[in-house]
Amino acid sequence: MKFLHTSDWHLGRQFHNVSLLEDQRHVLSQIVDYIKQNPVDALVLAGDVYDRSIPPTMAIELLDEVVTQICGELGVPMIVIPGNHDGAKRLGFAAKQMKQSGLHIIADFKQMLEPVVLTSELAGEVAFYGMPYNDPELVRHYYQTVVSTHDEAHQHLCGLIVEEFKSSQRNVLVSHCFVDGAIESESERPLSIGGSDRVSHEHFLSFDYVALGHLHQPQMKGTDYIRYSGSLMKYSFSEQHHKKAMTLVELNKDGFVSATQVPLDAPHNMRIVEGKLEQILQQGKTDPNSHDYLLVRLQDKHAILDPMEKLRKVYPNVLHLEKPGMLIGVDQEMGKARLARGEMDMFKDFFLEAKQEALTEAQEQAVSVVIQSLKQGE
Amino acid sequence: MKFLHTSDWHLGRQFHNVSLLEDQRHVLSQIVDYIKQNPVDALVLAGDVYDRSIPPTMAIELLDEVVTQICGELGVPMIVIPGNHDGAKRLGFAAKQMKQSGLHIIADFKQMLEPVVLTSELAGEVAFYGMPYNDPELVRHYYQTVVSTHDEAHQHLCGLIVEEFKSSQRNVLVSHCFVDGAIESESERPLSIGGSDRVSHEHFLSFDYVALGHLHQPQMKGTDYIRYSGSLMKYSFSEQHHKKAMTLVELNKDGFVSATQVPLDAPHNMRIVEGKLEQILQQGKTDPNSHDYLLVRLQDKHAILDPMEKLRKVYPNVLHLEKPGMLIGVDQEMGKARLARGEMDMFKDFFLEAKQEALTEAQEQAVSVVIQSLKQGE
Repeated sequence: MKFLHTSDWHLGRQFHNVSLLEDQRHVLSQIVDYIKQNPVDALVLAGDVYDRSIPPTMAIELLDEVVTQICGELGVPMIVIPGNHDGAKRLGFAAKQMKQSGLHIIADFKQMLEPVVLTSELAGEVAFYGMPYNDPELVRHYYQTVVSTHDEAHQHLCGLIVEEFKSSQRNVLVSHCFVDGAIESESERPLSIGGSDRVSHEHFLSFDYVALGHLHQPQMKGTDYIRYSGSLMKYSFSEQHHKKAMTLVELNKDGFVSATQVPLDAPHNMRIVEGKLEQILQQGKTDPNSHDYLLVRLQDKHAILDPMEKLRKVYPNVLHLEKPGMLIGVDQEMGKARLARGEMDMFKDFFLEAKQEALTEAQEQAVSVVIQSLKQGE
Repeated sequence: MKFLHTSDWHLGRQFHNVSLLEDQRHVLSQIVDYIKQNPVDALVLAGDVYDRSIPPTMAIELLDEVVTQICGELGVPMIVIPGNHDGAKRLGFAAKQMKQSGLHIIADFKQMLEPVVLTSELAGEVAFYGMPYNDPELVRHYYQTVVSTHDEAHQHLCGLIVEEFKSSQRNVLVSHCFVDGAIESESERPLSIGGSDRVSHEHFLSFDYVALGHLHQPQMKGTDYIRYSGSLMKYSFSEQHHKKAMTLVELNKDGFVSATQVPLDAPHNMRIVEGKLEQILQQGKTDPNSHDYLLVRLQDKHAILDPMEKLRKVYPNVLHLEKPGMLIGVDQEMGKARLARGEMDMFKDFFLEAKQEALTEAQEQAVSVVIQSLKQGE
């Protein structure tokens, strides 16, 4: 049995006011193409299907297209759980009506205990259990049991699932949670404050494979068969060094065989460029990846007039600018800049940028008078 | 072939800040019970499934429950189109994945030309064509054709559907539109301004039955087999005299046989009560339907202190109060009241209400002094 483990699609996400939908469409088409060339028994999506509980219509349409291709045209079942970004009940509408066609959206605890059983020659029957994203309050309320942390909630739910195990079946868990000790990125929304969201990987040990979602970096936790596939693409600059991928999982009758990373390439990379403006403008002219989404960190120490406009002439998708060494910066940095340098110095920088020449002595004196009178006015 | 024609469920609707969800659940359970006792071949829902394009989660859950009962447990296919209140793309997510289980949500023009074909012994094959709610702009854009009114749009779409007819099949159309000359209620949202939303029934004549939605009053238009089922329940006081129902349609191999109204009863009637406060309070004490949703139209000519509170002691679900004959009324009527009567008269009414006794002469004089001094202050 071979299946693909993916997670954190975040369809409909905006990044610095840029819609990532076309990038997402591009990466999803890689998944579809991969399956066309390398048949698999299932595609798992471990939560955060959408970026928010009420997704934009265009994100719904995109998911509809992908589902039509994968479940419909390719006949490959999809096993999907809601993540903390999804609205479980909204996502789970008519889930029972979709099952026959191979789209399994497991959005409530009742369905959690009714696994999707798939069969292959090498692995026999494999039961896929989907655990919809949950928090301790939800588990406490639904089961009328005392759990106060995510870890206790997972312990409780895993216990219920393990009771359903059949000796003739291999067992896969799909869950969206934060396994203790795993590596975070900036683009994940915390599940709760102060570490109470952490779950021990030990609850998962009796499964043959655990397909995790929530953390955006591909990683294994505790043992080789408990894994995060990582997100569909980069969703923050903190992820610039991630290698995004889906995980190709292989099982046989004895259980776990292997997990292999299958790279996913977004049309725009997301990366941080550091340097002085002139250097960056120069390198941008010959940069083959000049359309990447960039965070530019300028190292210049003097003020620059409208650096964003200049940068976008060579890097059209600069999305964010940081100027740690600079004194006149974006609005929120104005306050600090004022404290660090006098108004006269700032005006000199501005004048130089705007007129391409320095203030004359007479001009400097005139400006000084204006600044004095303004300060007295304050 | 027997099928039920319904429309305008408006799940999730609020009425004067009261959620109608439990009432809707109650009426929907009547539909389920009817089908249990009187098997039918299909249930049609001709648009306005939800009250708005992004429905509340609880409305989604209610529809999920009903679909599970009707398509799942009873095995009766449902044929659903979006109305002008629905978000077609949102409602139509994974529609292709639901079809196998008998839930047919026809939400785009492509599916419109792929009828749901059901078979019965008496009628042979019956093709159900769903026309998703549309406006001229949508049709113009999708088909790159010149249509400028709802009527032209329907003519165009009906023409396309009629081309698909097979001589071996009977044909049912499901559409959400305003047929010319039909009777409106206050709770329908106009499709466009100035009458350009009207559609001639003549485009529909070649179908064997036309299941219409949009207008909330059950009615036929032009001929016996072109019908509005009316809404699930009353959604405005203007509908107080409507008899809400679903339409049981019977077809045989020659086409239309009959259409019968099957009454639907909401747990709270919606009605208007007129009279003087004392009369209404008196009749309320013995009114067996005192929990109905009421608009009360008070005929008293004098001011009454907090009439809503008094009324709700006997009629707990008074939702709206009109006081056409009264001089001190709701806030927006204060202006008119002041013009019509002097402050002293109003104060006398108030005092009588509050103290259950009239002003003494001395009190009247004291109040008069206060009023004078206030008026000079103005």
